[in-house]
Amino acid sequence: MKVLIVYAHPERRSLNGSLNDFMIGRLRDAGHEVQVSDLYAMRWKPQLDADDFPQRDASQRFDASADSKRAYAQGTQTADVAAEQAKLQWADTLILQFPLWWFTMPAILKGWVDRVYAYGFAYGVGEHSDRRWGERYGEGRMAGKRAMLVVTTGGWASHYGPRGINGPIEDLLFPIHHGILHYPGFDVLPPVVIHRTSKVDEARYAEETAALARRLDGLATDAPIPFRRQNGGDYSIPGLELRPEIEVGRSGFAVHAAAA
Amino acid sequence: MKVLIVYAHPERRSLNGSLNDFMIGRLRDAGHEVQVSDLYAMRWKPQLDADDFPQRDASQRFDASADSKRAYAQGTQTADVAAEQAKLQWADTLILQFPLWWFTMPAILKGWVDRVYAYGFAYGVGEHSDRRWGERYGEGRMAGKRAMLVVTTGGWASHYGPRGINGPIEDLLFPIHHGILHYPGFDVLPPVVIHRTSKVDEARYAEETAALARRLDGLATDAPIPFRRQNGGDYSIPGLELRPEIEVGRSGFAVHAAAA
Repeated sequence: MKVLIVYAHPERRSLNGSLNDFMIGRLRDAGHEVQVSDLYAMRWKPQLDADDFPQRDASQRFDASADSKRAYAQGTQTADVAAEQAKLQWADTLILQFPLWWFTMPAILKGWVDRVYAYGFAYGVGEHSDRRWGERYGEGRMAGKRAMLVVTTGGWASHYGPRGINGPIEDLLFPIHHGILHYPGFDVLPPVVIHRTSKVDEARYAEETAALARRLDGLATDAPIPFRRQNGGDYSIPGLELRPEIEVGRSGFAVHAAAA
Repeated sequence: MKVLIVYAHPERRSLNGSLNDFMIGRLRDAGHEVQVSDLYAMRWKPQLDADDFPQRDASQRFDASADSKRAYAQGTQTADVAAEQAKLQWADTLILQFPLWWFTMPAILKGWVDRVYAYGFAYGVGEHSDRRWGERYGEGRMAGKRAMLVVTTGGWASHYGPRGINGPIEDLLFPIHHGILHYPGFDVLPPVVIHRTSKVDEARYAEETAALARRLDGLATDAPIPFRRQNGGDYSIPGLELRPEIEVGRSGFAVHAAAA
């Protein structure tokens, strides 16, 4: 496999840094090729703005979508963005590794998504008709590739359980799993989540890395979350609502994954 | 009222820029004081890292929580962070205004949260015992203040409906409403959401601003989302699970708001 790990933690000498090293070693030992985008080490620019489009007509107002579309089509994106897109095209597997900060990814990683996910690359792909609404949610340029999150949290597992006060971890991660990964076509594997990071001693570190190793070993074979395909018949077009005969009377994030 | 608007859009000559001007005008005309943090104009630094703590011992490994705690307690935070905290303490009402990018806030606004929400200011507040688990989720330094999101999306309202493919907008916003606003104590008002931004002509702009005006006029009086208080008896401590006799058999984000 060719694995891209996008890693967002500000301190290498941390649990996340150790887990990053562990993943790289495990994957390479198994014969895989690994590239790492260490966003803090790269001093990744987080904010999407007009500076991302140096060839644009500065007399016109900045339009994030239109300027992105033009720059992607004309090959005038900034080098940092184009390099990340090339890594994504090279990879067959993407791992996003980050600590959960305020119930989602750190700003620097959100800024990787905002900037690398160009119009024509991750959205605005494919035709819109009465049968298809673009290539997204199961189709798109990342189709055939797999993705997985490796996430740490400071809270307890119960705080992120079905009735835990923070909300269920799978629902907190849904906007990433479904809206950021499934959207441009990735098959999304269940996440690796390590809770209560301040209480990881040597024994727990050994347990957590053993579990992580099993998940890395299963990257190519584990079953993905069965998110529905937008253009596969389950949704009305263009309203994009789940058809009434499916998941009758139910709503919310969970209806977008098919029952096992 | 004293209203702080934190605004995150890269182009002033945009729908969001117009809405921002409209809100400032409407609030000032009604006699309110308004401060605006225009994050792009301020060139806000999004990424939380060791540079945020210039007085820290650089020979030690960086710990986002521990370094934040120390700097907040000792008054050695960076000036930009301290200024935003002072605005939050000045305000009785907070509005976060942003375009929904990849189903959450733009990186620059996430970075405002990551950096301004210091340990001792927005988290790590209050004592932990068998009756209280810190002052959070309804308590904390923002208690007594109100907050509201003003959000634009490119998609259709139906795409964000109960069975819409993107997921219900209230669930997509839950990690912000509950995890970022209710957490340090804000009372959270229902959001203002304007969909399909590419199709806003003059007639629709008039409608949307009229609706926005009504919401601004109701900032002090509209009923907030009835999120439960962590230490109010509804949750076990320290497991922080909703007690079994409440919302029997239900789970997910919705159980954390009391039924009407």
